[in-house]
Amino acid sequence: MIGELRDYLAAISDLGRARALLAWDERTQMPPGGAAARAEQVATLARVRHERLIADELGRLLDGAATETSGLPYDSDEASLVRVARREWEKARLVPSELRAEITRQSSLAEHAWVAARESSDFSAFLPYLERNVELRRRYGACFEGFDGFTHPYDPLLDDFEPGMTTQEASTILDELRDGVRPLVAAVSERGEPVDDSCLHGTFPLEAQERFSREVVAGLPLPEDAYRVDPTIHPFASAISSSDIRITTRFDESYIGTALWALVHEAGHGMYENGVPPELERSPLGSPASLGFHESQSRLWENWVARSRPYLAALAPRLRELFPEHFADVDADQLYRAANRIKPSLIRVEADQVTYNLHIVLRFELELEIFEGRLELSALPEAWNARMSEYLGVAVPDDAGGVLQDVHWAAGAFGYFPTYSLGNLVAAQIWDAALEDMPDLDERIARGDLVTLHGWLRERLYRHGNKFMPKELIERVVGGPIDVSPYLRQLNERAAEIYGI
Amino acid sequence: MIGELRDYLAAISDLGRARALLAWDERTQMPPGGAAARAEQVATLARVRHERLIADELGRLLDGAATETSGLPYDSDEASLVRVARREWEKARLVPSELRAEITRQSSLAEHAWVAARESSDFSAFLPYLERNVELRRRYGACFEGFDGFTHPYDPLLDDFEPGMTTQEASTILDELRDGVRPLVAAVSERGEPVDDSCLHGTFPLEAQERFSREVVAGLPLPEDAYRVDPTIHPFASAISSSDIRITTRFDESYIGTALWALVHEAGHGMYENGVPPELERSPLGSPASLGFHESQSRLWENWVARSRPYLAALAPRLRELFPEHFADVDADQLYRAANRIKPSLIRVEADQVTYNLHIVLRFELELEIFEGRLELSALPEAWNARMSEYLGVAVPDDAGGVLQDVHWAAGAFGYFPTYSLGNLVAAQIWDAALEDMPDLDERIARGDLVTLHGWLRERLYRHGNKFMPKELIERVVGGPIDVSPYLRQLNERAAEIYGI
Repeated sequence: MIGELRDYLAAISDLGRARALLAWDERTQMPPGGAAARAEQVATLARVRHERLIADELGRLLDGAATETSGLPYDSDEASLVRVARREWEKARLVPSELRAEITRQSSLAEHAWVAARESSDFSAFLPYLERNVELRRRYGACFEGFDGFTHPYDPLLDDFEPGMTTQEASTILDELRDGVRPLVAAVSERGEPVDDSCLHGTFPLEAQERFSREVVAGLPLPEDAYRVDPTIHPFASAISSSDIRITTRFDESYIGTALWALVHEAGHGMYENGVPPELERSPLGSPASLGFHESQSRLWENWVARSRPYLAALAPRLRELFPEHFADVDADQLYRAANRIKPSLIRVEADQVTYNLHIVLRFELELEIFEGRLELSALPEAWNARMSEYLGVAVPDDAGGVLQDVHWAAGAFGYFPTYSLGNLVAAQIWDAALEDMPDLDERIARGDLVTLHGWLRERLYRHGNKFMPKELIERVVGGPIDVSPYLRQLNERAAEIYGI
Repeated sequence: MIGELRDYLAAISDLGRARALLAWDERTQMPPGGAAARAEQVATLARVRHERLIADELGRLLDGAATETSGLPYDSDEASLVRVARREWEKARLVPSELRAEITRQSSLAEHAWVAARESSDFSAFLPYLERNVELRRRYGACFEGFDGFTHPYDPLLDDFEPGMTTQEASTILDELRDGVRPLVAAVSERGEPVDDSCLHGTFPLEAQERFSREVVAGLPLPEDAYRVDPTIHPFASAISSSDIRITTRFDESYIGTALWALVHEAGHGMYENGVPPELERSPLGSPASLGFHESQSRLWENWVARSRPYLAALAPRLRELFPEHFADVDADQLYRAANRIKPSLIRVEADQVTYNLHIVLRFELELEIFEGRLELSALPEAWNARMSEYLGVAVPDDAGGVLQDVHWAAGAFGYFPTYSLGNLVAAQIWDAALEDMPDLDERIARGDLVTLHGWLRERLYRHGNKFMPKELIERVVGGPIDVSPYLRQLNERAAEIYGI
């Protein structure tokens, strides 16, 4: 029975991977003429996959396999497979197909409306679509009444991205994060002397950027035959299998940071996917554990490795060779300072790693107020702008640069934003654990040895795939629950180095 | 009901197109590490598609739609949809899933064995796999007893590639073709003065070849936003939708002909797929009518257009610019002669367009003898070599260059080869019809106007998609059945021009 279950789930996995390839192709290779048909193809793969997932047959296979595996250890592959697949099956069956189809249809309409509304910076044009999206997500959430301890209307939304985390837990964590980051940002702002990051800005020929980024990714511990890198508009990483990683990146002619950190960020996602062991492939266990954990790895490689002093010191000579007019007079220390400048700004995706968290907290708080019925959607821009002023001291010039800047709400993805900051927290905890096990990690990174860290991450994290709930996994990886303090300590240490505060 | 049927068939089409994208990606983009998982993904998509195709539910939808469409004209989209889908459904249901799975499994094993056997030029190592493939194909054929007038064991095999054509019909046609081509080849050989095609051989820098082929394909009437071209090992063309055509090509550093004619050949396939009207998309009507018809378009563009005197005359100046050391002293007439040289040779895929047909006839005759039980598989190399000597006067040095040169039999694709020559015949008939309608076609091609021909083909052929059986379609397109004489006349005319015979 476990064999049958495995085969059944393998087909579901294959359909998901095929869909991922179609999506990757759409964003990197497809001729524009293919767009309409591609939307249908992707929708069909999603529907066929979903039909298999909610089938009674899977329930029968799960029951049979549960009996077979009842004596096995909790963390065995077999027991984990049955446990994880059952939760997914149960969740999927609670939502009527019509509602699911309506959510897909409406979010597609809303995304189109959002593009137009952002273009004209007109929130009111987007408002009816947002209202419909929120209403549908409420109905979606209501399907899960009584499931797995859900009590808050936001619980099921969060659970889709961070399984097992409650709204209460997320609030406690993000409140603490907010209250820790705000004083740091205030202290930096009060200090008055901005860090000079002009070396990162200017004009960087695309060809040299491309060569640079090829070298950067080649220096990461990703097996050469298991990935490729392509340019796209909004970078992402996608796993077609654990040894077929599609990294995408983009180049900004006026800023070299994108070619480096956006690339390493996506490669970080890719290394996690690549580290899932072969025996978990083609199953619900064959992927990272949650969006938060996924993000912990992109952030770890982007911010803890590629913005670290030893990494940048090793990179500086090459930057000087490739872009002499920008870096000829820039030493490793200046580069490190530029890479870690803290400066409140308007747009989330352009924010530094510290203020970034306040962008997330703002969105999370607004989402909560919406789903708790404490905020009318028509009042959203006002609430957004007030909080931008309060948390970041930034005046929002218009809706395009404010409440309309992200696609998530248009796509109906409420509950997604918090995972970005959860990723930062988990990364910091993992980094502390790594330093404890490898006290010479800095020296290793300085001499280009990223393999040791990679091997440690594989052993500590990657190898578990999706066997455990995030709550269980963080215990296994760092020996305790999610904790805000390591991240705050690290941010403060780095700020102390750079700003002397 | 017809709406439901359309939706049901649309999903089947989407799954097929998704599979085509996975196959294209595998051959052009995929990192090597993705191979094992990709095989599983492709197999899953094929299986899921097939399960939907053979479902009882489709039968019910077909019955209902048949009633609804009974008053509609034979050539209406709706009546055609029901008719074509029913035939596909009926055929698919006649074959037990176990047999299908076994055929897939064995042909995969056989392909691996074939690669090794060809490497060591050892037919005996491949023989057991070939025996198994033939045995399975016999069992496959036996599933269709009594279907649609099948009487010969080869009928169902041929029908998979050229629906509705009987073995008897194919034999009559290919016998006549053989008996017409052999005297022509003999006359050319006896003439003794070979045509000089040295301008096509030498060293052609890859970069210049790539630029050349980009220009060639840009000059074809394919909408710019509806295709892309990528290099691969064995060129093919694939439609992800009618406006998302993936052309692949390859470059031979020592021969410029590949960059031109292999590319135009695949673009010809692509133009046919691209010409299928939008209203037939996402249905079994949304593709070319058969392999023979498909090949008629690749051949028409490759041989009738791109090896024609006016096309090459227009191309010659550019060839002189890009490859001066080869073409500086070559005039349009010499280029035309080089492009149409006739010379018997060992390998099918390298054969000229005249002797090519004898390679096909040889394979077809051997296939027939095998399935009629007149040829032991162990005697195949001997039979192959004898016929190569008889038809082409070519001595076969070893099995690798003989009976092991093609992948088709390893893949279990018996009945496929004849479609290559059927394509030549149909192309010739269509060409005659085109010349009748457009007496100035040569002048148009000479001045780079390929749009007029393309528009004519769209109206005459492409727009029908897969609505009709090949037998019906040839009547609609040229007003009569498949006929060998136009092709023979054209080949003789061209040979007369070049060889003076």
